[in-house]
Amino acid sequence: MTREITSDDVAALAAGAAIFGTGGGGAVTTSRFGTADALRKHGPVRLRTVAELTGQDMVIVMSGIGAPTVGIEMLPSAAQPETLLRETERAAGRRATAVMATEIGGTNGVGPVGWAAQLGLDVLDADGMGRAFPEATMVAMNVAGVPRRLTVLSDVVGNVTVMRTIDATWLERHVRAFSVASGSLCLGASPLYAEDVPGAVIEGTVGRAIEVGHAVLDAAEPVPALAETLGAAVLISGKIIDVARRTEGGFVRGSVTIAGTGTDRDRLLRVELQNENLIVLADGEVLVSVPDLITLVDSETGHAISTELLRFGQRVSVLAWSCDPLWRTERGLDIAGPRAFGYDIDYVPFDAGDPRWASAERGSEPGTAGAVQ
Amino acid sequence: MTREITSDDVAALAAGAAIFGTGGGGAVTTSRFGTADALRKHGPVRLRTVAELTGQDMVIVMSGIGAPTVGIEMLPSAAQPETLLRETERAAGRRATAVMATEIGGTNGVGPVGWAAQLGLDVLDADGMGRAFPEATMVAMNVAGVPRRLTVLSDVVGNVTVMRTIDATWLERHVRAFSVASGSLCLGASPLYAEDVPGAVIEGTVGRAIEVGHAVLDAAEPVPALAETLGAAVLISGKIIDVARRTEGGFVRGSVTIAGTGTDRDRLLRVELQNENLIVLADGEVLVSVPDLITLVDSETGHAISTELLRFGQRVSVLAWSCDPLWRTERGLDIAGPRAFGYDIDYVPFDAGDPRWASAERGSEPGTAGAVQ
Repeated sequence: MTREITSDDVAALAAGAAIFGTGGGGAVTTSRFGTADALRKHGPVRLRTVAELTGQDMVIVMSGIGAPTVGIEMLPSAAQPETLLRETERAAGRRATAVMATEIGGTNGVGPVGWAAQLGLDVLDADGMGRAFPEATMVAMNVAGVPRRLTVLSDVVGNVTVMRTIDATWLERHVRAFSVASGSLCLGASPLYAEDVPGAVIEGTVGRAIEVGHAVLDAAEPVPALAETLGAAVLISGKIIDVARRTEGGFVRGSVTIAGTGTDRDRLLRVELQNENLIVLADGEVLVSVPDLITLVDSETGHAISTELLRFGQRVSVLAWSCDPLWRTERGLDIAGPRAFGYDIDYVPFDAGDPRWASAERGSEPGTAGAVQ
Repeated sequence: MTREITSDDVAALAAGAAIFGTGGGGAVTTSRFGTADALRKHGPVRLRTVAELTGQDMVIVMSGIGAPTVGIEMLPSAAQPETLLRETERAAGRRATAVMATEIGGTNGVGPVGWAAQLGLDVLDADGMGRAFPEATMVAMNVAGVPRRLTVLSDVVGNVTVMRTIDATWLERHVRAFSVASGSLCLGASPLYAEDVPGAVIEGTVGRAIEVGHAVLDAAEPVPALAETLGAAVLISGKIIDVARRTEGGFVRGSVTIAGTGTDRDRLLRVELQNENLIVLADGEVLVSVPDLITLVDSETGHAISTELLRFGQRVSVLAWSCDPLWRTERGLDIAGPRAFGYDIDYVPFDAGDPRWASAERGSEPGTAGAVQ
């Protein structure tokens, strides 16, 4: 079923993308307004499913690349999406018919919808991560072994480069260098041919982000609504009692400790983070780990809280849910499992349906999903 | 007159290129052997003059970009020149007919001759600097206002990028970032169309480097022979009594002090350097400054000594001579005059014919050009 995204959908898209950002992916504040503007100006965009792609279609995969904090102040220029489209089409020798977000999580899940409107292209209802990850190598296309033919990078002043790299690791290295030289933020695009798409993207994530966003925005009790929509477990609801956070090697690293309140009192949880939330621990035991999704939300509003905005005293709920099966393959875990982030632990798939996450087990009344303070 | 460069010319080319390196431009040791090998394997290259270029000719301007010290150990791969040629021709939509060195000074004046042999192209008897300079902005094509259409960069492992930048300053910034990400060394190429060449290159510099190299290699007394061939003044012959050198902001910076010996006794000279030799001072007075050329040579052999190899006790002669008139224009001085290197002084053109540089003024017997110890 083909549907449209209008400016009215952007608030929900942004709220949902923030949830899939798992603490990273960049604040959605500015891209939210820019995208709504673009949809008002250029009209709604058509949301196409992967099944609706035909033989000669080429998807242009787009994202901002750099420091999310810079993106809050330094907006893309209106010329950048056009430059990326022109150079990608020229280098690939094909016309693009749809835009896909590299990552649905955070600002990078929102901006591409506005760029598609500006460029007169459809939006593919899919992305390359199903969440947010910090590096260019951590995409479904890489897991599936689709060759990355080329990458076009554009900075805000008008410089553009067309890169062909020998593998994803070198891509990450050269892309990062261009981004830093651009003031720590650039836009990137790469072509993805229709025949390569099946099995190499995470499908349905744009529509899903809008749906999840509505759970945040429309529900009387957002946290249980969100958990239900996501199929997530609420691991704890409580108060942040410690934030240890440092900027190291270009990343935000650290951990945050949450003490349970209400029905969760007497429980303590620690979340380890590196841009994104990576691991949840209780009494030294790993409860959830990347690539499964971990998001801290405001217990009152259900809005996601990004890692750089965590602070002492916030009332938060920790949600965890399963990643796309693609990330649970051997190659998926090689690329984005705990060891890819430097944790010497084996990945144990998280199951939100496990009875231990039922609210009864956590000490609340049976039948109430998640104890919200 | 068209002539050829054979493997027999490479030793002289390397010695001459080192002289024009004015202390920088990279050691010629490894490129000398690589280039002689290429000429033996692929045969001599034709040295074409600017006047011999015709309408549809395209020159491919090539150089190594990065840290000269890395270049001593990390050799280019054989595939790199071919990658640069293929991508430059593809992006420009024209066939290249000749190779030109970006800078004649140092290793970058030697390597392109071997690449031309490998690629089956001619060598243009010209370069973009007439010496060595540290930055991509400091080229004659920039002084002449020729637009740099695109730049192709290739690293040793096989990554390649085609850049279009809005100006030379951004070019330098993005090129440097790619180079650093490549391990601080990459090869670069850009197209220069025949119609843009006149007035936008320094002509005759390849033949001139070979000629100057012969003065070093063949003369019984290399220093006076070199001074005569270059039209240079020998400012002092003496001994290095102090080297203050630090690596700062990606450059070698510092100064070297030379105490005169023999007929130059009682004289003291200081040379300020930043990769290249930039300024010569005596008693606080500036005698010579960039973009005029300053080279320290071994007083015995006449071979140029690069700034990173200067050390206490070396017997050296300091030669200075006039730069190409292009660098003495207002725009030339904006780009590569003393202020471009952070010296708050006005440029005063150096005149090697000034009587004060005659050996009589310097205390030696009249008629003996330069006092060699």
